[in-house]
Amino acid sequence: MATTVVDMKDSFASENDLLAAKLKEQFREQDVFVVNILGTAGAGKTTFLIELLEALRPRRSYVIEGDIASNIDTDTLRRLGIDAYQINTGGTCHLNAAMVGGILERMRIEGPALLAIENIGNLICPVEYDIGENVRLVVSSVPEGSDKPYKYPAVFQTAGAVVITKTDLIPYVDFDVDNFTKGVRSLNPAAPIFQVTRKEEAGFAPVADWLRARVREIYPTKGIA
Amino acid sequence: MATTVVDMKDSFASENDLLAAKLKEQFREQDVFVVNILGTAGAGKTTFLIELLEALRPRRSYVIEGDIASNIDTDTLRRLGIDAYQINTGGTCHLNAAMVGGILERMRIEGPALLAIENIGNLICPVEYDIGENVRLVVSSVPEGSDKPYKYPAVFQTAGAVVITKTDLIPYVDFDVDNFTKGVRSLNPAAPIFQVTRKEEAGFAPVADWLRARVREIYPTKGIA
Repeated sequence: MATTVVDMKDSFASENDLLAAKLKEQFREQDVFVVNILGTAGAGKTTFLIELLEALRPRRSYVIEGDIASNIDTDTLRRLGIDAYQINTGGTCHLNAAMVGGILERMRIEGPALLAIENIGNLICPVEYDIGENVRLVVSSVPEGSDKPYKYPAVFQTAGAVVITKTDLIPYVDFDVDNFTKGVRSLNPAAPIFQVTRKEEAGFAPVADWLRARVREIYPTKGIA
Repeated sequence: MATTVVDMKDSFASENDLLAAKLKEQFREQDVFVVNILGTAGAGKTTFLIELLEALRPRRSYVIEGDIASNIDTDTLRRLGIDAYQINTGGTCHLNAAMVGGILERMRIEGPALLAIENIGNLICPVEYDIGENVRLVVSSVPEGSDKPYKYPAVFQTAGAVVITKTDLIPYVDFDVDNFTKGVRSLNPAAPIFQVTRKEEAGFAPVADWLRARVREIYPTKGIA
């Protein structure tokens, strides 16, 4: 039975890839750079996103928030003046290209712009679904423990960058930075690994610099960020 | 497309229910009480399980560890003398009755006994899959934030009990116990909500007492725990 489920996932993933390719074409035409943010429930994805936008200060930005239920994160972002839109999947454990395409019709994005998409909170299902992104950021928080790359390898394999959040908690929990780094490196030699805490704004500047460089690789003259 | 995925899930869930019913029959014949432990990645499920077994001291116990990859948790448990077995799902985001049935063939369980099953780390997929359990414990850790019941309602709806872990971190993070409790209560008026930290063993006694009462409801004379 497990094998059958996997086969079906593959078939859906292929259908998704076609839709994602169309999204990518649309984003390219509009000069929109897309970041897909992955992490487990409670990893601090929304806080990271807020601080990242603050450090990056893109010329124009949009956010899509993915959740099973609630508008909590979208409401938080809107209160901060961020142009945010909510997808509630009901019970589906990942966003897909069709969901993103659907909400884009309501968003009227104007490029050049940055679009950040916060995926559904888990380290498993979102991995297989391209949602038209240019880059994936994987957020992993200190209290989760440093064994996550070993237990959830695929999400770290596809990361453009890995961000360790809540580093202010290192004194209070078991988190072995070397063990975490070794785990990520064995799966993904290229991705930089950043360390941040919302208690030190300065920590987000290196992530913003890295992302700005990725944006300029693809849109060198558009002034997105 | 999202709708089609949900339909398929339902069909698999029904097939799973038939297998789960068979497992339940088998467990009942063997006098085995089964606990299904759910929580996101890094919520502290394994630490909770170790402390719970220590507080409960069942006459005989077995553990099944579910993970996408690695034997880290099973190795930890075995080093403590706990009879643990690993299921690696590859990429599947939940255990199902077929997987549990498969590993049971290798385990040669002798009842009366307690069987604790740690599910795959996420708050979404495991909800729909009965794996023959008598009760579900949902583990939610303080650093995840108190909004989890609002964002992932289904897992809290099906909980027999909810356990807030890592309460020693409350001074260092935003976690509103009242908000969390209100969220759980609105979904599940009956489930007790426990608070634990591995730094205070005594906190696990009330969880053990509650579980012992559940075991005795079903196996009043077997002396399982």
